This record gives sequence, structure tokens and C-alpha cells, in this order.
Amino acid sequence: MAEIRPERVLSDLRTLATFGAYKSGVHRPTLSPQDIAAREWFADRLREAGHDASIDGIANILGRSPASGRKVLSGSHLESQNHAGWLDGALGCVYALEAARAVAEDPATRHLGVDVAVFCDEEGHFGSFLGSRSFIGALDDGDIAGAMSRATGRSMREELAVTGWAGRPRHIIEPERYAGFFEAHIEQGDTLETGGLRIGVVTAIVAIWQYRFTATGEQNHAGTTSMARRRDAGLAVVRLLDAIDRRFPEICDPRTVWTTGRIDLEPGEKSIIPGRAEALFQLRDADPTVLDRLDAEIHALVKAANASGRCLVEVERLSASTPAAMDAGLQAALDRAAEKRAPGKHLRMPSGAGHDAQWLARKLPSAMMFVPSIGGISHHWTENTSDEDLVLGAQVFTDAIVDVLTA
Amino acid sequence: MAEIRPERVLSDLRTLATFGAYKSGVHRPTLSPQDIAAREWFADRLREAGHDASIDGIANILGRSPASGRKVLSGSHLESQNHAGWLDGALGCVYALEAARAVAEDPATRHLGVDVAVFCDEEGHFGSFLGSRSFIGALDDGDIAGAMSRATGRSMREELAVTGWAGRPRHIIEPERYAGFFEAHIEQGDTLETGGLRIGVVTAIVAIWQYRFTATGEQNHAGTTSMARRRDAGLAVVRLLDAIDRRFPEICDPRTVWTTGRIDLEPGEKSIIPGRAEALFQLRDADPTVLDRLDAEIHALVKAANASGRCLVEVERLSASTPAAMDAGLQAALDRAAEKRAPGKHLRMPSGAGHDAQWLARKLPSAMMFVPSIGGISHHWTENTSDEDLVLGAQVFTDAIVDVLTA
Repeated sequence: MAEIRPERVLSDLRTLATFGAYKSGVHRPTLSPQDIAAREWFADRLREAGHDASIDGIANILGRSPASGRKVLSGSHLESQNHAGWLDGALGCVYALEAARAVAEDPATRHLGVDVAVFCDEEGHFGSFLGSRSFIGALDDGDIAGAMSRATGRSMREELAVTGWAGRPRHIIEPERYAGFFEAHIEQGDTLETGGLRIGVVTAIVAIWQYRFTATGEQNHAGTTSMARRRDAGLAVVRLLDAIDRRFPEICDPRTVWTTGRIDLEPGEKSIIPGRAEALFQLRDADPTVLDRLDAEIHALVKAANASGRCLVEVERLSASTPAAMDAGLQAALDRAAEKRAPGKHLRMPSGAGHDAQWLARKLPSAMMFVPSIGGISHHWTENTSDEDLVLGAQVFTDAIVDVLTA
Repeated sequence: MAEIRPERVLSDLRTLATFGAYKSGVHRPTLSPQDIAAREWFADRLREAGHDASIDGIANILGRSPASGRKVLSGSHLESQNHAGWLDGALGCVYALEAARAVAEDPATRHLGVDVAVFCDEEGHFGSFLGSRSFIGALDDGDIAGAMSRATGRSMREELAVTGWAGRPRHIIEPERYAGFFEAHIEQGDTLETGGLRIGVVTAIVAIWQYRFTATGEQNHAGTTSMARRRDAGLAVVRLLDAIDRRFPEICDPRTVWTTGRIDLEPGEKSIIPGRAEALFQLRDADPTVLDRLDAEIHALVKAANASGRCLVEVERLSASTPAAMDAGLQAALDRAAEKRAPGKHLRMPSGAGHDAQWLARKLPSAMMFVPSIGGISHHWTENTSDEDLVLGAQVFTDAIVDVLTA
């Protein structure tokens, strides 16, 4: 069985963490100088491992194995969120690289191949999963032309021109080349840690349904307008959010999550009754029937708000993705590998966060594996995973890939 | 009895509305070119009426009557809120001017005097009641030096330098000169209109107690953090505001008002659980015992939030003014005048908004009179009052002043 080299995994992760180092994490936005350097470094590691590696016109990296036998595809992303963790993204790239190396180094498996992909901008500095969508052929040139940095306002085209990669053709998936796609990631939650577990086998990547609530009332003087007469749009939104908070626990699934990320009252002055209020509300679940049930409840609560209140409350669903089911056969391979290396210490679980695998799942049987996050921390520079878990995860991941390649 | 001249009152109000005309209202921020021109125009009207009028170092106008007998002080402000109404402030200035003229024109009263004051920046473009506080001696040069325009960031000093008034001494009240202070204003609410009434006699100007609620939770990923584990600061603030909304109607007075003008969630992103949330909350009442009761309830609800929730909720009282009682004798004079000119059509009521009279009340027996606002509209360019009410109000106001001057 292809054995990984622990010191090489940890060393590669630590080297990647030097590109844009920020406290104990990294700040490596898509196509920043640090991100560009990390991509060049990673492509060199693929070449060093004998792969035919190149960076394409959207900064995706594809490293193709020279092996003649059965192959899988594996990878993740290299850019980070702002001032975020050293493992998010990087872990999945290094695990894929290590699996490719371990498979190539073992005489029993070296006829098999692991192609390694690094998808650009999973973290959404310019758009939404631009790299993985490009790779599966779901992104046209117009989408790239319209992509702008949320931080700088500069276009992705301009930034790509700086790298010299702008004019290159884009890598496109060859589905017939692969038995499946594998992505590894930190859990980003604390389910594994609090359960004393070491490996998560992802069943599905949840869907995200994004809503905007808007209340329209009447802007007025906060001193001279009696409570009976006011039409306070801010209060209408507060009441709706409170009603959702009371009702949802009665009808959701144990893993459903919902979040109000933003509330804006207009004009936002201390002595003016808000005439308009807006809230961004989000719902995540892996089960479409749960999403439908909660969506119906949102509309019922909005209707009740309009029946009882003095403002016009409206709900708009801004987006509604589909849950991405992971492949049953690949999940079973991950289970077997985890049971061998960490008996009884693994769990099947949905991914509450989006990942490139949700796009790859449209073209290939796909799988995701989680390792524990210390304290469940994610998207913060204090994000971390123990070295023992990092090493174990690399081996389980490689074992599962070999399992599928030799099936 | 000194009779006002209706056409002169309406004509002066309409002329003032041409300075910074905006739709059917005015846009005349403090020390804007339009505001400066309105002040010059108004000072000329005072001189035309025989007053010794001058604009001082903070743009206050004082017009001193040449009469030798008993005197009252009357006035209001000339600047407007942004894109606001034509009457707010201007009405009280023109009523004071008309009372001065009517008293001077009547042989029976011309030995009596009405000094007219126009206080700068009641609307708070640069600070908080800078003009009336200056006039009662409650503003030092440091306060003026620190005053900055909320809109442009330019200092009040710079703007005063443009007018040429910067170096002038400031008018200071001579309390022994006056029997009292009278200010007229539109109601800014709809109590008079809905009651079919024409004159409001103000009992007190409410106190404003301003609070900041802050919740501190844990910023986290909106997809991977279970509902049980999250510490959502936004939700903590929503729950507190909802609890206040449910509880206050049970313990407030009929005229108490409370308002949440602003809510900020940090970082304010759709996929991030807010780690910090803040709300600006305000309470107004004319009765200190009601304010104390509601303040205690706020602290009790915050304590309950901390006992039951997973965030740290804190309340900070940013300011707490004292209700300003209007003088009983002057209220009686306004009652008598209203009863004579509009029998049964007047009402005693508190003022929910702040006015210069709350500062003058510290130095002089003070009174305020309201005329109806059509639709209760205030601080908006559609603000209006019928000509009949404008004329009646000027006469009642003048009658009450004569009543006090001849008492």
C-alpha cells in the first residue's frame, strides 16, 4: 500500500504557509503576489513529482500523471480568505500532491495515476468558484470578463495580465480519464473534535438558499411620532427575524443552519424612525425537502408579518443552489481507509460549507474527506489542526484513492 | 389688543422659503449660502421694525426692542434639516417678528417690547443646540472650535470666517430684561390634526435618553458552525430589541416613545455569523419617573439576555437629558389666548422633539406653542400647515405675549 511521507506533507504545508504569512495564518488573496508565487511553487512540486504541470488562462493548475493505468483527479485551492488559516485549501492541494507522489513511489501502484488540480478563486475574491466552474466547462469568457476584485475593484483580466497567464487556453476536464474526484479539507466546525473523531466522510455538500427581507414603513421623527402611529421598518424586520428564530428549531433538521449576516436600517440615524429596513438571511441544508419546508415557513411568517404589522414586508430569494451528493462508492472507500487507520474514529457528515467538489460532482463521482479543526475555527488566522491529524488524514486520503484506483 | 397682519405673516414665511427652496420645502443647512442670506434678510426685517438687530460671532441674531417698558424674548431658528420643510424654525422666527411688530404698532402696547432671537444650528448640522447654549452662556470657545459639519467635515469656525461674523462677540442673555421666553413651532406630529384642534400648549419638552446596546459573540462560518455552537451577536441584539418591543407597552406612559435608529452587524457579510452587533436605541418621555422605570427595565432585559443567551450583551447610556418644564404662568397665558381665538380647540401636550426653549428654560420662564402639522409630517419637504392655522397661531401667540407683558 502506498505510504505517505509525514515529514514531506508537513514540510510542504509549512512552506505554503510562508506565502503571505500573517500571524499564525496566511493572507493570500487570489492573484496577489503571494498567491501567484504559491502557484508557481506548487506547479514546480508537481513537475518534481514527474507530472506534466501547467497554469492555465484562469490560474488553474493541472498536473497530469505520466502513468498509463487508471487515474483519479484530486485537488483543492491555494488562495486564502483575508487574514485566514494556513490549512484551508492548501491542505487539499498538498494531500493530492502527496497521494500522487506516494502512488508513484510504490512499485505496486506506480502504473496508477493521481492528476492534481488547483482551482483558482474558490474563496470568491473575484467571483463564485470561477476555477472549478471553468474546469468543468461551466464558465464562459464573459463570466471572466465581468469578474472584479471585491477588495480592489480591479478586474480579474487585469490581474491575470500581470501574471502573464491571461492569454493561455483553459484546462478542461476529460471525464473519461478519471475514476473519480477526491478533495480533502479541514472540517471548519467542531463535530469531529468534540466527538473525539479524526476523519469525516462527507455525504453531501449543503445547498445555500440566500434571501433578502425588506420592510417598507414610513420614515419619521423619533420624538413626535406616537408609537401607535409609527410604521417602523426596522422593528418589522426585528420581529420577523425573532419569529424565525423561535419557529425554525421546531421544524428544522439537526444539522440545518440559518444566519442573518447583515441588517441595514435607513436612514440609520438615532433620532429617525427607519422608513426602510433590509436583512440578508441564509439557509443551509443538504436535504431539499428540509429546504422546501423552511422556505414555505419563511413565506408564511412574512405573510403573518404583513397581516399583523403596519409595514410592507417582502422576501426575495436571491439564490438557491442544489445540494451536491457525494458518490456512495467513494464514500465507502474513505470509510474503509479510515476504519483501517483509525478504527471507530470516523464519521459520515454533510459539509456545511461550499467546496470545489460540488462543481466537480457534476462531471465525476466525487468525494470529500475532513480532518478535525482545533476549536472548530475557520476563516481566521488561528485555524489549526494537530500534526498527528494532518499526517493521519494524508494517509487515509491516499489509501482511499489507491482503493478506488485498484478496484 | 395688538392685532397681527395675516398677509405680512404669510408673505414673510413665503419669502423665507425662497432661501434654499427645495420642491415645496427648503434645503438650508446651517451657514450654507442660503442660510447666511436668510439671516441677513431676517436681521433687515428686524431693523425695519425698529429693532437694534445684529448677528453675533456664532451667527445668532438678536433684535432688541427700543421700547422702555416690560419685555419678553421670543424666537426660534432659521436653518433647516436637509431637504426639509419650510415652516420648521422659520415659523417661530416670523411669529416672534410679527408679535414684535404688532405690539409696537398698537398704541396701547407700544411701550412694551418683544426682543427677537434667532438661534444658530438648532438642527444640529455642527453640534447640539450651539446657538441657544451660546446665548445662555453654556458654550465656551472650545465647544465652537470643536464643532464640525456632519456633511462636509469643515469646521464651524471656517464657515463663520466665510461670513465675516467669526470675530464678533457673542450675544449673551440678560435674564433681568425679560418676563419670559416664547417659542412657536409646528407640532411635528398629528395629535392636533386628528383631534380637530388648532393650538397646542406645551407642558414640557421631553428628555431624550440615548443608549447603545452591544453584543459580543463569536464570528464564525455560517455553514460549518452548528446552531447549538454558535454565539451569534446579531441574533442576541434582535432578541433584546424584540423583548423591549414586547415589554415596554405594558409599563410605558401613553406618550412614551422609543426607537431603534440603527443596527450594525460585524462583519456584515451574508455567510459570516456576526461576532459583534450594535444598536442605537432611544427613549423619550417628559416624566422622569417613567424614564427611570424604563431604564431599569432595559437593564433587567439585558441581564435576562445575559442569563439565557450565549453572547455578552452590554448597555451603555450615551446621554440622558432632563425634561424641560414650561412655565405654568406662561402656559396659562397661552391657554387664555387660545380659548379666546379658538374656543375649545386647544390642548396641553408635551413636545416630543427638542427645541431651543429647553435651553432658554434654564434662564427664563419659558413657553412653547404648537400649530397643527398636516399629516403630522416633519423634517420632510412635504411638511405643511394650512394658512388659516398659520394666521390663527400668530394671533394667539401675540395675544399670549401681550397678556404676559401687561400682567
